[in-house]
Amino acid sequence: MKNIKVELAERSYDISIGSNILEGIGERLLIFSLSPKISLISNPTVFALYGELVTSSIKKAGFDLHTVILPDGEEYKDIIQVQHIYDELLKQKLDRSSGLIALGGGVIGDITGFAASTYMRGISYIQVPTTLLAQVDSSVGGKTGVNHRLGKNMIGTFWQPGLVWIDVETLKSLPKRQLLAGLAEVIKYGVIYDSELFAFLELNREKVLNVDNGAIMHIIKRSCEIKADIVSKDEREAGLRAVLNYGHTIGHAIETATGYTRYLHGEGVAIGMYLEARLSQLLGLVDQDHVLRIKALLDFYGLPSELPDDIDKNSILLSMQLDKKTVAGTLKFVLPEKIGKVRIEKGVSDKVVRESLET
Amino acid sequence: MKNIKVELAERSYDISIGSNILEGIGERLLIFSLSPKISLISNPTVFALYGELVTSSIKKAGFDLHTVILPDGEEYKDIIQVQHIYDELLKQKLDRSSGLIALGGGVIGDITGFAASTYMRGISYIQVPTTLLAQVDSSVGGKTGVNHRLGKNMIGTFWQPGLVWIDVETLKSLPKRQLLAGLAEVIKYGVIYDSELFAFLELNREKVLNVDNGAIMHIIKRSCEIKADIVSKDEREAGLRAVLNYGHTIGHAIETATGYTRYLHGEGVAIGMYLEARLSQLLGLVDQDHVLRIKALLDFYGLPSELPDDIDKNSILLSMQLDKKTVAGTLKFVLPEKIGKVRIEKGVSDKVVRESLET
Repeated sequence: MKNIKVELAERSYDISIGSNILEGIGERLLIFSLSPKISLISNPTVFALYGELVTSSIKKAGFDLHTVILPDGEEYKDIIQVQHIYDELLKQKLDRSSGLIALGGGVIGDITGFAASTYMRGISYIQVPTTLLAQVDSSVGGKTGVNHRLGKNMIGTFWQPGLVWIDVETLKSLPKRQLLAGLAEVIKYGVIYDSELFAFLELNREKVLNVDNGAIMHIIKRSCEIKADIVSKDEREAGLRAVLNYGHTIGHAIETATGYTRYLHGEGVAIGMYLEARLSQLLGLVDQDHVLRIKALLDFYGLPSELPDDIDKNSILLSMQLDKKTVAGTLKFVLPEKIGKVRIEKGVSDKVVRESLET
Repeated sequence: MKNIKVELAERSYDISIGSNILEGIGERLLIFSLSPKISLISNPTVFALYGELVTSSIKKAGFDLHTVILPDGEEYKDIIQVQHIYDELLKQKLDRSSGLIALGGGVIGDITGFAASTYMRGISYIQVPTTLLAQVDSSVGGKTGVNHRLGKNMIGTFWQPGLVWIDVETLKSLPKRQLLAGLAEVIKYGVIYDSELFAFLELNREKVLNVDNGAIMHIIKRSCEIKADIVSKDEREAGLRAVLNYGHTIGHAIETATGYTRYLHGEGVAIGMYLEARLSQLLGLVDQDHVLRIKALLDFYGLPSELPDDIDKNSILLSMQLDKKTVAGTLKFVLPEKIGKVRIEKGVSDKVVRESLET
């Protein structure tokens, strides 16, 4: 098992990555000073696969476990589900020292984190991510939240988990489309921070797609190390942390414009990464070679990169204007300069953005 | 104008107390690096009295101000109103650097603070409290939240304001019942921390009730100093801050059992203070003299102190079991030892609590 520490003073925590470690979660919880009452938040798909293993481990460690099952899908990542969790936690009399366990993908993790941050002014939660996207990105760093019909993750908090517990075995049951969507975020780490990781993905396609333990542990570990490093330097996204939004400004807008149902988050980010690379090229910040190498890697893993014609460019622009990253109406982009290095560019004109969408 | 600093490292802020200072709020906002878009949250009663003064001051300072009016009353302090605020902020395109202004009493302050803490993972807010209760208690210290049908303030966050701006002139339009309810919290500061403040209240009843500027500035300043001191030592209520809950364990339970409509918060706390003092006496922790002096001061200001016969004692006990302050089923009380000194007592048996309710 590999351990990575997210250094955040009194909010520091471990990311533990291993194979077949789900059944160890109950014992690991004993390190924390938690009340006996614990709630596990999951969805029907994940709970059917791993629910029994996780619940029996937690019960064996002496906890009084209660389960809340939420419907599966990004379209349910809303305040209604959060209210459902509040109702359940209060009915079960969870107290200030109780903890929540998020067993599932990014949606479950984000909702659970938000509920934990706002229940009785904040209780502990543990991330047990079961998708690649959640393992390399959303479970680490304390961003919690739900969507609003006017924008993604508009309602949320910064609230760090007490632990992130990653079992790579869960990826073996993950649908391939979901695995690829998670790889989009791994590719992102390569572009923003680590040309070696990018090259590893170029050279080890088969191993990665076959969820070879060595290869998959390597890319998860490297992704978590990069994210832990960035988050510990800038927890609340005052500056540096914004580089993690590469591909996300356009990506989120695509998700919003298509009602969160057509694309998985990672697929939106994949298109966003290519379009933002092209935007960088239009602004003369990056050579075409790098842009094409990014597109090639997305194609290589079967990820989308082009914006389909039937998506209205105006709605994409409008949605970006309302993005959290937009301040005083000014669009902000993370733009690659080469593989492994990005810059943050404020005040990009609508005209150039539109051009990059329409090329 | 008097200034008190709440010392919380990078989250430190000023409490400014003065007479006729509402019209100065716009200029004061210029110190902060806020986006031009600002939302003012208020209720119809307060907005009719001070809305124009405050909005014209803020607009004159160059801000693009938008107003959200919420219905008046504790029964509206719920997640529905928070969602209404989210909708308005997104429609108005408030961004991460925008600020909210809470103009009103504790309900407006608590809801606004909660919305600010969860909109785009946290934006700034300014407290402009217009009731005595909000000025001496709820606007200071960063506790935000809304009620759930199963308990008061069950959903909330710790999120410090950027400034608390107190104009004592607003108290001159405050209904007497509301003024008295606020005085209950001032009496609380006397019991938990400051026998001189307690004696001041015993000796200056007429001045206080007539909202004499000197007397009222004194008790607000002293209350804010005590709260600022406690909060800066224990922001998230890990220990010391709990002393501020004197009167609140039973007080909250009374409010919950009566559906938040029969008693004002301060009135619930007044009854709670007397019953918890009596509980302290039953446990042999305080002499009867002190208990009677507390009751006498409550009576002197026309505040309730006894639990009416028609309120079911079982529902009070049940509601306390679900209180945020209850951990693993154990009731926790703040109990006076003498005027100016309290102790925190865990594990008080249901039996003694019931006895204190039934005496």
